[in-house]
Amino acid sequence: MHEKNLTNTLLLDFYGSMLTEKQRDTMSLYYDEDLSLGEIAEQSGVSRQAVRDSIKKGEAQLWELEEKLGHIKRHFEISMIADKIGDISKELLEILEKRGVYDELHDGVKEISELASKLTE
Amino acid sequence: MHEKNLTNTLLLDFYGSMLTEKQRDTMSLYYDEDLSLGEIAEQSGVSRQAVRDSIKKGEAQLWELEEKLGHIKRHFEISMIADKIGDISKELLEILEKRGVYDELHDGVKEISELASKLTE
Repeated sequence: MHEKNLTNTLLLDFYGSMLTEKQRDTMSLYYDEDLSLGEIAEQSGVSRQAVRDSIKKGEAQLWELEEKLGHIKRHFEISMIADKIGDISKELLEILEKRGVYDELHDGVKEISELASKLTE
Repeated sequence: MHEKNLTNTLLLDFYGSMLTEKQRDTMSLYYDEDLSLGEIAEQSGVSRQAVRDSIKKGEAQLWELEEKLGHIKRHFEISMIADKIGDISKELLEILEKRGVYDELHDGVKEISELASKLTE
């Protein structure tokens, strides 16, 4: 089983709606709510092994979707560009503030900075 | 059948890999290459009606994927923000050039403008 990590949370976010409701709920408890296999088993009234198998199967399905569709890869590329825009606009704001420029230039760069952060929400 | 339009091309781009190869090829000829049903029929050695049915079925599958996953909706939201960033940075560049400012501010805004256009590639 893959480690609990950001990618699995993203997989569930991007492709979770392709799973059955039960499977999605189980995986959400594991990845989003960070419950243990034992805790999920107790809550669902099934064995720890059954939970483990369900999550493993779901992970395989989600990875297969990403391999076919590549939308998370695209998401990472967009995030990287958005972060760069965010970083540059923050640097520009500092320069403007040091120079005491608080006009339309300052407003514009500030707006870009805010828009960039929306891209990675 | 939906009209040939941007959304269908995007549907094929985003989710085409979930179709069979044959179906994807047929739809690509129709949407990306802009061939007519008759031309595709002739090229594939099947009836015009068979091509029509195949495209109709494929469209339904792609729309269902978008309804479940919503990745094109997300794409449009990102494009809208990217366009705004692009517009603002172009306005700022004009202001800077009118004021004769060709320093790190100008470079930074120029870089943002270029990055914004990468977001919508």
